[in-house]
Amino acid sequence: MLPTILDLTSLRAAYEAGQTPLDLVETIIVRRAASEDPAIFITPTPDEALRAEARALMERAPEPNSLPLWGVPFAVKDNIDVEGLPTTAACPAFAYDPESDATVIARLRAAGAIVIGKTNLDQFATGLNGTRSPHGAPRSVFDRNYVSGGSSSGSAVAVASGLASFALGTDTAGSGRVPAAFNNLVGIKPTPGLVPNVGVVPACRSVDVVTVFAATVGDGVAIRKVMEGYDAADPFSRKAVPSSLPAAGLRVGVLDGAEREFFGNSDVEALYDAAIDRARALGATIVAFDYAPFRQAAELLYNGPWVAERLAAVKDFLATNAADFDPTVRTIIEGAKAYDAVAAFEGRYKLEALRQKTGKEWEKADILMLPTSPTTCTVEEMMADPIVKNGQFGRYTNFANLLDCAAIAVPAGFDANGHLPAGVTLVGPAFTDDALAPFADAMHRAARAGMGKDREAALPEAGRVVAPADDFVPIVVVGAHLTDMPLNHELTRAGGYRLKTGRTDGSYRLFALHGTIPPKPGLVRDPSFTGNGIEIEVWALPPTAFARFVQNIPAPLGVGKITLSDGSCLTGFLCEGHAVAGGREITEFGGWRNYISATGPAA
Amino acid sequence: MLPTILDLTSLRAAYEAGQTPLDLVETIIVRRAASEDPAIFITPTPDEALRAEARALMERAPEPNSLPLWGVPFAVKDNIDVEGLPTTAACPAFAYDPESDATVIARLRAAGAIVIGKTNLDQFATGLNGTRSPHGAPRSVFDRNYVSGGSSSGSAVAVASGLASFALGTDTAGSGRVPAAFNNLVGIKPTPGLVPNVGVVPACRSVDVVTVFAATVGDGVAIRKVMEGYDAADPFSRKAVPSSLPAAGLRVGVLDGAEREFFGNSDVEALYDAAIDRARALGATIVAFDYAPFRQAAELLYNGPWVAERLAAVKDFLATNAADFDPTVRTIIEGAKAYDAVAAFEGRYKLEALRQKTGKEWEKADILMLPTSPTTCTVEEMMADPIVKNGQFGRYTNFANLLDCAAIAVPAGFDANGHLPAGVTLVGPAFTDDALAPFADAMHRAARAGMGKDREAALPEAGRVVAPADDFVPIVVVGAHLTDMPLNHELTRAGGYRLKTGRTDGSYRLFALHGTIPPKPGLVRDPSFTGNGIEIEVWALPPTAFARFVQNIPAPLGVGKITLSDGSCLTGFLCEGHAVAGGREITEFGGWRNYISATGPAA
Repeated sequence: MLPTILDLTSLRAAYEAGQTPLDLVETIIVRRAASEDPAIFITPTPDEALRAEARALMERAPEPNSLPLWGVPFAVKDNIDVEGLPTTAACPAFAYDPESDATVIARLRAAGAIVIGKTNLDQFATGLNGTRSPHGAPRSVFDRNYVSGGSSSGSAVAVASGLASFALGTDTAGSGRVPAAFNNLVGIKPTPGLVPNVGVVPACRSVDVVTVFAATVGDGVAIRKVMEGYDAADPFSRKAVPSSLPAAGLRVGVLDGAEREFFGNSDVEALYDAAIDRARALGATIVAFDYAPFRQAAELLYNGPWVAERLAAVKDFLATNAADFDPTVRTIIEGAKAYDAVAAFEGRYKLEALRQKTGKEWEKADILMLPTSPTTCTVEEMMADPIVKNGQFGRYTNFANLLDCAAIAVPAGFDANGHLPAGVTLVGPAFTDDALAPFADAMHRAARAGMGKDREAALPEAGRVVAPADDFVPIVVVGAHLTDMPLNHELTRAGGYRLKTGRTDGSYRLFALHGTIPPKPGLVRDPSFTGNGIEIEVWALPPTAFARFVQNIPAPLGVGKITLSDGSCLTGFLCEGHAVAGGREITEFGGWRNYISATGPAA
Repeated sequence: MLPTILDLTSLRAAYEAGQTPLDLVETIIVRRAASEDPAIFITPTPDEALRAEARALMERAPEPNSLPLWGVPFAVKDNIDVEGLPTTAACPAFAYDPESDATVIARLRAAGAIVIGKTNLDQFATGLNGTRSPHGAPRSVFDRNYVSGGSSSGSAVAVASGLASFALGTDTAGSGRVPAAFNNLVGIKPTPGLVPNVGVVPACRSVDVVTVFAATVGDGVAIRKVMEGYDAADPFSRKAVPSSLPAAGLRVGVLDGAEREFFGNSDVEALYDAAIDRARALGATIVAFDYAPFRQAAELLYNGPWVAERLAAVKDFLATNAADFDPTVRTIIEGAKAYDAVAAFEGRYKLEALRQKTGKEWEKADILMLPTSPTTCTVEEMMADPIVKNGQFGRYTNFANLLDCAAIAVPAGFDANGHLPAGVTLVGPAFTDDALAPFADAMHRAARAGMGKDREAALPEAGRVVAPADDFVPIVVVGAHLTDMPLNHELTRAGGYRLKTGRTDGSYRLFALHGTIPPKPGLVRDPSFTGNGIEIEVWALPPTAFARFVQNIPAPLGVGKITLSDGSCLTGFLCEGHAVAGGREITEFGGWRNYISATGPAA
């Protein structure tokens, strides 16, 4: 039997245990038919096509889990081309039959994933709420009176209600994050340009990003990795330069003072404060930062010339089919006609000036933690005030693509009545997509909020995101570079941090070298020797700092491989054999620190 | 006595020999008064102010050459604020008295440089020719009938005629390069954002760059370094991430086929071909590339929505003072009114698509070498057809800022009659500003074209730009990593290159290690031993590759310091002493290569 929520770990285990993709699609067909929400799909993949897809996969790759996403069902926002299904952008008159898959769809299908249908959205991805569609408004899986969030409304609900393992959204202002918050899901919003947009109906082409809704951060990152990679056919595609974050002592920026705005929703505010407490408990350093320049950038997206990108995307269609638009969407898009090219450039100047101001805030924090949406509302409330309410949802999301950030939205638990969920979003500088993941995953797990509509579900342990996502390299130090020793600053100033303390295995001998300033020991391996090992510390350095560091090590010291008492073998300080001949053997002290305290630093 | 051209080396030597900044300014005053070109300056610094400036400097820093630009005279394009002189942008009605120095001026003055005046320009920096000014057209220092180039016209002529050691220009379409070509100068065009624009009248704010006209590449780079550095007050200021270029085997892209266009000017074409020959003689690998996507990007600058930036810069002034504009400049700027915000974004989409196409060309070449201007013309010819002729000048310059390039324009010699000069421009990807310099300097020296109007001047040897501008780190290899040995690919694939071959000093012994695959030697220092040294090669690796490389070295090998026969001491392969105990000593072979050829690789 498949669990309610089809996270990758559970699904793979089911396949491992003998279930097949054909069984899977039969389950999807049953669940889809039984779904309580009639507004999720615009075009579901027909049942027979689903079965054919499963059979084709089993023929192409018979071995269970033999492809990265073998038999993984996913839903696709209906502004992304899937060959064989129409693309409508939730505007029936706009519909066309794409000649080929979008780049991301082609990559996911090649990896074994199965499209279960095209999902509902705010028309032309213009909105954050999910009500701006002629196909009805999908609802939060927790209360049918409440909005699902948008614009990727159907995609989020499909995953949260167990119809798909993941779903694709697109995110210009927050469309890949807000619906995650309202449906207790993870939303992966890549750095702009990391995932190609070829075959995606543009909203604001310069800031559109394809996103993933998933049950866990690990799932979402794994799926993003299948989709990502440069595509020259997308003018905004970029070659990623992965950026790291500190593996320890992460500084997490949080809202403060006047910039804390929840539009009266004390439930979400309480959940945000609880998330801050959890972040602190996870070892983060909580710092206040000034959200004002981020907010001012966010405001440019709808109240500035960027709406002209929305008009650029549909202007020919608008000229002939104005009556076919959702009235709110049309009002927004036609607002672009007020902007001339001078205004477009002036908007850019404002944005770049704000980018410089946000740079100061980034000096305070490594990542930001923001409410994904500061509030929610019912469908009725949204319909009554569609521009203002929608704007509230985007208060903490609109800036992220304009300012070239990576973001991961994670569940942050349910309000005091256990009624509605809220989320927080971890935001990092460009290309921290991988680096953000371990902390985001830890925050999700600490929230104990389950996955999607199954709020009791335990997050699969095997899906934990563990690897510190930096590329720092280890170096074993034994002497003057140990913590509190005279040369330790060379490691800390180079951005290094201590990974662990420990001992070498028993084959090493330590000598006090003659005439070194400051005094230094020489570590030498002697396979014929059996001692108790020598005290060491393992430090991590950025690669370029490591290179400089090694270049500056004077003879007779150097670096080679050192075997530790736990059997691991790491790069660290060794000494040329000839140099210890005249030195005093100090192996018996068990380490340089003991020797120094016993004899004084002048020894 | 001061030489005709006031390059930094000569000027510093004069100061060293006892001349003072007061002597210098007297010379400038005399030369300025005697100048044949009445159109160079809009506002010269008054004589008395010059003398006061020199005296103030000698008080502040009495020691000759005790500041980086101690007593160095420079001219400033009159769209850059200098406190105490009006800024006019060559539009008298626009004039204002700046309250403070532009950031670059403040930095240069702090470094000891002395402003000799504000120079003429194409009004609002709109032009590449120098004739669009109510203050007359400066002329090429080689023929008064010919244009000086622009828009930084007066600045180039000031340096080329010996009135200043250097001058500041600004460059949007090519204004810091074209006048360098027409006046036998070096033009340093930094990567956009490297040098702050605070206090500069914008032309196209998103692509404006402050440039340096100098006698030599070394001078220009030294001056740029004083000016550069992040300034948060400039929305487009960036923190530089210096990018390196191969120190050997530089691939230089040159024009080919249909993209070679000199508008009938066979003199410039011949000089371009001669420059290609010199580049080859300097060791460059000449490769053809397709200029078409660069040209298409270039065409967007004037024939696309970017003209709206020019309008944005002056729209309030234009509204009240349309009659005060140069007619050609006004026609160009008013053309911007035809563009709406949709067109602005569509222009950006085109540019980004072209950027992707140019990416393919950058895979073929490390840098591009282009004619700075493919042709020139007389002032009369320019006045007769001001838009078309101007467009010709920009054919190979307009793309550089839109596509985020660094560029250095250098002299390429004189036509067959020795009448007019031409130039070539070396163009590199963003932040190759330093990396471009050694090759640019070598090209300038090889052209034997003198400096400015003194075409016989010898370029000062002390000003040569020698350092390979990469931060690669050296590693000494002795065994399987030598050229043509089984692990050499680890160095080449990591982007390494061989710096040199050589020998260790006589204190090293070499051993064939037991059981290593592929076979490897162990190098050990024995201070009591005196041999003939061991064959080594020194390779250079990028720092991150070096870090990875060292991390992957297996025990008993490591890296430490190796003393070479020339006395240098570099990081390289050493072996733990215990490991050579069981190995065969092969010191007598003089190196691993000899040993392998004597015994076969299976040894």
